Amino acid sequence: MQTLNVDLGERSYPIHIGQNLLSRPLLVPFIKGRQVMIVSNETVAPLYLDRLQAQLSAFQVDTVILPDGEAYKDLEHVNRIFDGLLERRHNRTTTLVALGGGVVGDMTGFAAACYQRGVAFIQVPTTLLSQVDSSVGGKTGVNHHLGKNMIGAFHQPQVVLADTDVLATLPERELSAGLAEVIKYGLIHDEAFLSWLELNMPALRRREAGALSYAIYRSCAIKAEMVALDERESGIRALLNLGHTFGHAIETDQGYGQWLHGEAVGAGTMMAADLSARLGWISPSSLERIRRILLAAGLPVLPPAEMSAERFIELMAVDKKVIDGSLRLVLLQNVGQAVVTSDFSQEHLAATLAAGERLGQL
Amino acid sequence: MQTLNVDLGERSYPIHIGQNLLSRPLLVPFIKGRQVMIVSNETVAPLYLDRLQAQLSAFQVDTVILPDGEAYKDLEHVNRIFDGLLERRHNRTTTLVALGGGVVGDMTGFAAACYQRGVAFIQVPTTLLSQVDSSVGGKTGVNHHLGKNMIGAFHQPQVVLADTDVLATLPERELSAGLAEVIKYGLIHDEAFLSWLELNMPALRRREAGALSYAIYRSCAIKAEMVALDERESGIRALLNLGHTFGHAIETDQGYGQWLHGEAVGAGTMMAADLSARLGWISPSSLERIRRILLAAGLPVLPPAEMSAERFIELMAVDKKVIDGSLRLVLLQNVGQAVVTSDFSQEHLAATLAAGERLGQL
Repeated sequence: MQTLNVDLGERSYPIHIGQNLLSRPLLVPFIKGRQVMIVSNETVAPLYLDRLQAQLSAFQVDTVILPDGEAYKDLEHVNRIFDGLLERRHNRTTTLVALGGGVVGDMTGFAAACYQRGVAFIQVPTTLLSQVDSSVGGKTGVNHHLGKNMIGAFHQPQVVLADTDVLATLPERELSAGLAEVIKYGLIHDEAFLSWLELNMPALRRREAGALSYAIYRSCAIKAEMVALDERESGIRALLNLGHTFGHAIETDQGYGQWLHGEAVGAGTMMAADLSARLGWISPSSLERIRRILLAAGLPVLPPAEMSAERFIELMAVDKKVIDGSLRLVLLQNVGQAVVTSDFSQEHLAATLAAGERLGQL
Repeated sequence: MQTLNVDLGERSYPIHIGQNLLSRPLLVPFIKGRQVMIVSNETVAPLYLDRLQAQLSAFQVDTVILPDGEAYKDLEHVNRIFDGLLERRHNRTTTLVALGGGVVGDMTGFAAACYQRGVAFIQVPTTLLSQVDSSVGGKTGVNHHLGKNMIGAFHQPQVVLADTDVLATLPERELSAGLAEVIKYGLIHDEAFLSWLELNMPALRRREAGALSYAIYRSCAIKAEMVALDERESGIRALLNLGHTFGHAIETDQGYGQWLHGEAVGAGTMMAADLSARLGWISPSSLERIRRILLAAGLPVLPPAEMSAERFIELMAVDKKVIDGSLRLVLLQNVGQAVVTSDFSQEHLAATLAAGERLGQL
């Protein structure tokens, strides 16, 4: 087991990474009261809930089981967590435990941020995506029918358990979706890690524990470094959104849950790389290198064929990164170096958006 | 105009108190972006919305008008604020302005805390209760059908405008409800202020501007002092809840909005005083003094006749101040000195609860 410390002053917390963590009482030191509410979903609970509950026999443990999927990441389903907490009379010393992927983590974290104006929570992410992304940074929240992740809070967990064993049951598509974010860390901040990923992609797709642990550790370390510098996302942290503005537009257009988040980020990353190449910031061979690793990870490199450039523009206009009408995007200055910028022409952007459209129709 | 500074480090903000503040551009220096969303209700908007909007012609100003009443203080109606923000494409530099009483303030503040994980907001409280209570402290939130204020966040405003002129249109019952909180400040922390209130109650009920300004200033100053010492309510700030645990039980039992919050606090304060007297902490004459000033303010001093002791116990068990099964109450050690304690016998508590029951049936 490796442990990474996310350094946020009095809100610092450890991420434990390795095999067979769910069967060890690693959570117990982080539970301050007598009550625990485990929030999971219908897919994950039958697989791992028993194993987790076995560690918590000293506490009043209750559960809320949500339907599985991004389509349910809304206020109505967060309210089910509040129902469970109040019906079982959880007080402000309770600890919420999120057992599931990013959707469960985001909703549970948001419920913890708001229940009685803030209670403790613990993340037990069960997808590669949530292990490398939502484990770090404290972003919690839900979707609104007019925009993704528009309602939320910053709320840090007490501890995160990233158990590589649980990835054994992860569907192929979801593993690839997680790899989209892993690749992103290499692209924005660490060219050497990207090279490592190029070599080890077959091992990762075979789910070899050692390769997975290293990819998770390195991804979380890069994210933790950026979050520590910028907890409330005013500057450098925005680089983590490479591919996300395009990707969110795809998710919104298709309806949450049709494209997996990581798949949308994969295609969105390719669009950001395409625009960076059109601006002359990265070379055609770098663009091809990015396309190859995304394909090697099993990810889409094109947006949905039916999405027009106009539709992208319409959806991106409500992105949280729009400041007073000006769209800011994360683009690549180099492989391994990203930048947040509105320094691109509408013509170049239109060309990127239209290229996706044309290529998708081939 | 008097200005009180609430001292919370980088989250410090001023409260302006006085006459005719709504017609002055006092908000403008606190609006950082170009967008403003005014949230009000169907009662207050026709009276004061125009006056406020006239100060904001330099901005994109949109409005959300909610139905009036505590019955609508829920997630569903907060979602209407999110609908308005997203439909009008407000970005994370927007400022929300709450124009209304405590319900509008709590909901708007909570919406501001959660919209895009936190945007700025300004309070323009239009009831005495909200001017002396929710103006200070940063508590925001909504009710759940199983408990009051169970969902929320701590989120401080940029500035508060407490205009005594708007109290001219306040219904008599609501003025009395506000006075319940004003009396509370004297009882928990400042016996001299309580004496001033005894002398000036007729002037306050006649809505004399000078008396109102002083009562608001002194109330906010006492609350600000306690909040500055304890922003997240772990200790001294809990004293502000004198009468509230009993009061919340009354509100929950009767259905939100049947009893005004301040009326429930009035009866709840009398119950806390009754228990304090049974414990021998305050004298019978102090108890009578408290009863007289509550009556002089036009407040109820008895809970609803139909509420049994058992019903109180049941409802108080979900109060946020229950820690691991033990009920803590704010009681009076003296007039002007409160304490949070679970140091009372179940017999004394039962006697207080049953006394309300018996007296209510006279």
